[in-house]
Amino acid sequence: MPRNIRLTIEYDGTDFNGWQIQPKGVRTIQGEITKALTTIFKEKTRLIGSGRTDAGVHALGQVANFHTKSLMSLREIRNALNANLPPDVAILKVEEVPLEFHSQYSVKSKAYRYTILYREVRPAQQRHFCLFYRNKLNFQKMRGEAKVFVGCKDFKSFQSANKSNPTETVRTIKRVDIKKRGEYIFIEVEANGFLYKMVRNIVGTLLEIGSGKLSKGSIKQILSKKNRIYAGPTAKPQGLALLNVVYS
Amino acid sequence: MPRNIRLTIEYDGTDFNGWQIQPKGVRTIQGEITKALTTIFKEKTRLIGSGRTDAGVHALGQVANFHTKSLMSLREIRNALNANLPPDVAILKVEEVPLEFHSQYSVKSKAYRYTILYREVRPAQQRHFCLFYRNKLNFQKMRGEAKVFVGCKDFKSFQSANKSNPTETVRTIKRVDIKKRGEYIFIEVEANGFLYKMVRNIVGTLLEIGSGKLSKGSIKQILSKKNRIYAGPTAKPQGLALLNVVYS
Repeated sequence: MPRNIRLTIEYDGTDFNGWQIQPKGVRTIQGEITKALTTIFKEKTRLIGSGRTDAGVHALGQVANFHTKSLMSLREIRNALNANLPPDVAILKVEEVPLEFHSQYSVKSKAYRYTILYREVRPAQQRHFCLFYRNKLNFQKMRGEAKVFVGCKDFKSFQSANKSNPTETVRTIKRVDIKKRGEYIFIEVEANGFLYKMVRNIVGTLLEIGSGKLSKGSIKQILSKKNRIYAGPTAKPQGLALLNVVYS
Repeated sequence: MPRNIRLTIEYDGTDFNGWQIQPKGVRTIQGEITKALTTIFKEKTRLIGSGRTDAGVHALGQVANFHTKSLMSLREIRNALNANLPPDVAILKVEEVPLEFHSQYSVKSKAYRYTILYREVRPAQQRHFCLFYRNKLNFQKMRGEAKVFVGCKDFKSFQSANKSNPTETVRTIKRVDIKKRGEYIFIEVEANGFLYKMVRNIVGTLLEIGSGKLSKGSIKQILSKKNRIYAGPTAKPQGLALLNVVYS
């Protein structure tokens, strides 16, 4: 009787070439976990992730699943994985889920957080986990424009070029929250799905709104163009973290 | 006319052999800043720190000062230093202070923060900035015993062995705060001065209090022994950060 096991994963993306397994020699999160699973179960295991994250992007709650005939307890699997994984990946939770559960197809929504260090001087301690930004920002204007993203819309203007891009570019954004906590700004985006580099393009555009490069009303206009060239630049990967994935 | 310049410094201590400059080849924070000062001012400069931090220990507000005849503006000095320093050290502030100011001798008090990740699973993202602790802790008991540290006392039992240890081991602790924020525990200690590894020895002892290895009343007893062997183990350096230094 096969079992379907779901993992909740934290990783520091700094020294990884992203989530997706690569043919050989390239360090990826999916690759490292797959290697650990093979060591533990002594069989080839296919690990399905909720979606890819790019090189340098982090996760506090990535989700993946795999099938196994092993009778190991969930606690044993968790401890064995954490013992076999490198220090920059940790398995937070191991659960048994119905056989039909699929980490990618069963996704209801996902939330990402983008972290900006907003001060005069570059970071030393958290340099791998934030974007350093020193120009003056108008938060009221940013929050006003952020609201325009919310809803079921065509986000083609916020999709970066990639050969595996979907033709369907309509997504539903549930919220875009901009929080200020001390020297940090957190931009959280929750949606039923994301296009390639969509959060980073949204953040890059919101920073141009905040700094005055783009005016009020810009987001509405950019969305209507359905062309990437009208949106702002892609914000750097190190500020981005996949917060959590929600399933029905 | 010489000027006395005070620096406020942030660093990620992970890849440093501590604050104090070493003869050669050993990477230290004082060494890196001294090198940058020599590059900028084209003269040998003596950098005085508020005190040492050990290998792996971080700082969000270390203070140091140096004398120079240069007429560069404070902003220019800050920018030149940040441009010449490696990414794991940043100069947050540059101020001109009276000639008699001395980063070490003028200290009124210092505050350290020790960060503990208190959950079932080891950290991935913040692994260089916390101690991972999974055993159950009694916070009420820890807070009760933490109060016993406060005041003007002989902390000899909390001083690790070191050839340059002072004979005078009386210090005044102003506060020992234990805060719980989500999965993190922060233990903040503020005092007019610290003995060698004192904060890490206090934290190691408080964890033994919290886990039940040591009982209520232990801190009073340990203090009265004036002997390091009675206190708990030294907590790992990566959880420790020098928060700030206060001058009169």
